Amino acid sequence: MHNPVQLQEIIEKAIPLIKYPKHPANLYEPIRYIMNLGGKRIRPVMVLMASELFNDNVTIALDVALAIETFHNFTLVHDDIMDNAPLRRGAQTVHERWGNNNAILSGDVMMVESNKHLSKVAVNVLKAVLDTFNATAQGVCEGQQLDMEFEQRSDVSISEYLEMIRLKTAVLLGGAMKLGAIVGGASEHNANLLYNFGENLGVAFQLQDDILDVYGNPEKFGKQVGGDIIANKKTFLHLKALKLAQKEEASLLLSENFKPEIKVGMVTNLYNKYEIKELATAEMEKHLALANEALAALEVEDYKKTNFRALVKQILEREH
Amino acid sequence: MHNPVQLQEIIEKAIPLIKYPKHPANLYEPIRYIMNLGGKRIRPVMVLMASELFNDNVTIALDVALAIETFHNFTLVHDDIMDNAPLRRGAQTVHERWGNNNAILSGDVMMVESNKHLSKVAVNVLKAVLDTFNATAQGVCEGQQLDMEFEQRSDVSISEYLEMIRLKTAVLLGGAMKLGAIVGGASEHNANLLYNFGENLGVAFQLQDDILDVYGNPEKFGKQVGGDIIANKKTFLHLKALKLAQKEEASLLLSENFKPEIKVGMVTNLYNKYEIKELATAEMEKHLALANEALAALEVEDYKKTNFRALVKQILEREH
Repeated sequence: MHNPVQLQEIIEKAIPLIKYPKHPANLYEPIRYIMNLGGKRIRPVMVLMASELFNDNVTIALDVALAIETFHNFTLVHDDIMDNAPLRRGAQTVHERWGNNNAILSGDVMMVESNKHLSKVAVNVLKAVLDTFNATAQGVCEGQQLDMEFEQRSDVSISEYLEMIRLKTAVLLGGAMKLGAIVGGASEHNANLLYNFGENLGVAFQLQDDILDVYGNPEKFGKQVGGDIIANKKTFLHLKALKLAQKEEASLLLSENFKPEIKVGMVTNLYNKYEIKELATAEMEKHLALANEALAALEVEDYKKTNFRALVKQILEREH
Repeated sequence: MHNPVQLQEIIEKAIPLIKYPKHPANLYEPIRYIMNLGGKRIRPVMVLMASELFNDNVTIALDVALAIETFHNFTLVHDDIMDNAPLRRGAQTVHERWGNNNAILSGDVMMVESNKHLSKVAVNVLKAVLDTFNATAQGVCEGQQLDMEFEQRSDVSISEYLEMIRLKTAVLLGGAMKLGAIVGGASEHNANLLYNFGENLGVAFQLQDDILDVYGNPEKFGKQVGGDIIANKKTFLHLKALKLAQKEEASLLLSENFKPEIKVGMVTNLYNKYEIKELATAEMEKHLALANEALAALEVEDYKKTNFRALVKQILEREH
């Protein structure tokens, strides 16, 4: 069995070997560019991890892993256009470098490239792989749509927020796990347990993100603490405070009257008063418990679950 | 056997029955909107026509036909963003009505919806269907990229232009034919002959479009005669004249010094002088001959080819 670092290396070696057509160069260069910007390759590693639970030959899942990584990068290219984002992983975004039209079209071709990777799996699992991938892709698009709509709305509920992050972030982790399981030869029952594991892990990961944005150690966090507060971002913490605080207090959350660092301090105090961190942590732990429950029910030898337990622990304890 | 009008009715009845999720409404409404804007449904009809050559049960090809129509409409949604087009079939384009971001994302989901339709075909043809569809989708994207690039270039050759229209327009007609053949149970040989038929028909169709834009009967044409000339569009006629005319004459093609109707008259005279219409017609007839050749080689009873011959004739004789 490989550890996650070894699996990441397998992905890193495979990506430069993907063959794209040479022409039109401007259609395919952005794809090579974004695919080689790096990142932790979490999603394709999850595909391989899940497959290896059921099949010693981890390369059997490589095409699906590349499909998931290509799809994920496709969503980054299109999301960055929609968000008007100039930077991605410290480098120019595709639309900044090649223009919006080119970025739309290269993204479209990445979707085709994902499907080309998928079509290489064994015929006996092809239909199940497609169904899972298509449901996953559809969920991710729905999540992005909700995220954009929430920016314009002032009445987003906590349950709507949880549904949005489930779709936008968690469904893809669940889908990656399930796809790996399917190509590895898992039963439907085990594949669905791994889906539940991945999805709940994804929700927990996003909630931890929301918490770290406010309560992260500035030295370890890597980005500005309080960035979400300054941007009035509707995170779990923001929405919970909006619900629990007095009306006058809550108006602070959207106020533009204070310097950023002052506002971050005041909002953090408000969060502390209503124990928002604890409430967010409880929600996160609920999802980690569900992930652990799915993992416990998984019908594989216990020692094979080590990497999966480590993932849960990493999220619980991560500081950035 | 159904005639093309009957096949179109089958498509028209099937489209409103496609079930999209209800939420998020703004993601799915644009899909219903563009899918119901009408059009002649040429591509899905071609899928059914090709399938029916090999299988009496035409509904066997319906999922693939809907996949092709959904994919085609997806390309319209994204192309209209790139082209900044306000109108499509006389109605507001999706991005005009819902905004660019929404249009990008609804388009993305349409690609997923296409793949969902495809995944419903019988498992024994699934792999072949996916391979043909993915190659087709990739070609169409490459064609759109070339089309955008040609607008910025002054050295486009005739062969580059023919390759662009092959990719942007003809590959999808070839792909529709081949996909119908595959689900209908055709041999690989026959499926490829139908691909060649569709692709050559597509190139001929686009060349006829270029000709009609200049030489169409204004009463029957339905849009402004000479529109391509006014827009300096690099059509087959434009590029051929650029190549054959004297340098001073050729400068007229890109000139902005004349009123539109004057320029249309002058450019048409230039085309006449160099017999551009005849050259374009010869190129079109070359592709129709190749389409007929593929049709003749097709191993099905001759009476079944009637509808296909009618398609060739329609293109040869169409006036709008």
